[in-house]
Amino acid sequence: MNDHEALRSLKGRYFRTMDTKDWAGFRRVFHDDVVIDVSGSGGEVITGADTFLAFLTDRIGEVITVHHGHTPELEVSSATEATGIWAMEDRLIWPDGSRLHGFGHYHETYVKVDGSWLIRSSRLTRLHMDFRPANGS
Amino acid sequence: MNDHEALRSLKGRYFRTMDTKDWAGFRRVFHDDVVIDVSGSGGEVITGADTFLAFLTDRIGEVITVHHGHTPELEVSSATEATGIWAMEDRLIWPDGSRLHGFGHYHETYVKVDGSWLIRSSRLTRLHMDFRPANGS
Amino acid sequence: MNDHEALRSLKGRYFRTMDTKDWAGFRRVFHDDVVIDVSGSGGEVITGADTFLAFLTDRIGEVITVHHGHTPELEVSSATEATGIWAMEDRLIWPDGSRLHGFGHYHETYVKVDGSWLIRSSRLTRLHMDFRPANGS
Repeated sequence: MNDHEALRSLKGRYFRTMDTKDWAGFRRVFHDDVVIDVSGSGGEVITGADTFLAFLTDRIGEVITVHHGHTPELEVSSATEATGIWAMEDRLIWPDGSRLHGFGHYHETYVKVDGSWLIRSSRLTRLHMDFRPANGS
Repeated sequence: MNDHEALRSLKGRYFRTMDTKDWAGFRRVFHDDVVIDVSGSGGEVITGADTFLAFLTDRIGEVITVHHGHTPELEVSSATEATGIWAMEDRLIWPDGSRLHGFGHYHETYVKVDGSWLIRSSRLTRLHMDFRPANGS
Repeated sequence: MNDHEALRSLKGRYFRTMDTKDWAGFRRVFHDDVVIDVSGSGGEVITGADTFLAFLTDRIGEVITVHHGHTPELEVSSATEATGIWAMEDRLIWPDGSRLHGFGHYHETYVKVDGSWLIRSSRLTRLHMDFRPANGS
């Protein structure tokens, strides 16, 4: 599998393992020292895959989530380094019925370690977010 | 065209021919003995492309449908066999105005026959489904 | 980067630069003589990249937009010519709160000029459009 195919599959696993709550599989898409920046989406900057996993399972462990990624712009800059920008859409449905529906872009870097591509950093920028409260129409 | 490109195009034709109701084109993406398993989505297991086509045109022939597929995880295991997992989203709008909006994953196998990839089996799992009745808000 | 990868990245830039209103970047994805046909979506046929850019910034310069593209069916017919069909979904949110949400397909041609693929023509067909007025539920 060439690098572009492998990078697309990596992001496919990121989305699928997160939304199906396969947390062990989700952990494996990240470099140990991954930097996740969701400060543009009301969040913070988190360093470390284990820290991010703890953060995420706390926030969405009981939430139905659907994350989709589109039309990546990938650039492989060396045998072990690549960058990518992905359009994204996400939906969160909390147990009380409240919902978040958002749109934006992931700006990412990847590293190849022992033959496998991993997410090294990810920064989320937003185009728009809709929030609907639990009793909303 | 390499196998990964051909498999992505195959699934693109699947979605486009279904949603534009090009049923002759839709038939051609399937192996004759395809197994379609939508039991995880309130349906059943259907064997055979002609049987599936009859089932589907009966169910959605008069329904506006939009099906989208995302971030496939493809694996080509031999010269004539491959597997893929696709994230998906679908919308159905019935003539009476009722709507279904769903999210999930297709888990598929493919076979290459006479130089062309075909869908050999497809199983749909769901993350979530919203149904809105005809007089819904 | 091979032609298929380059064509996907081109369309990725088209969507991203439009939705982030990077109009200089948006201009660079088009051939000077591009033909844009949105007559199937209540619009018209526009010829010329500069004319199209002026049209578009007038129409959506102050509108939040989200455009996503899916499952392209790409065919590279020569060293400098290609075609593609993309499934699409778009959302427009006007300053007054009114919204358009649509689905369809782009039918496109591409040309390679000085080593870079450009959009040569694009025709939008629609599966469905929902319009919600400013005071809608």
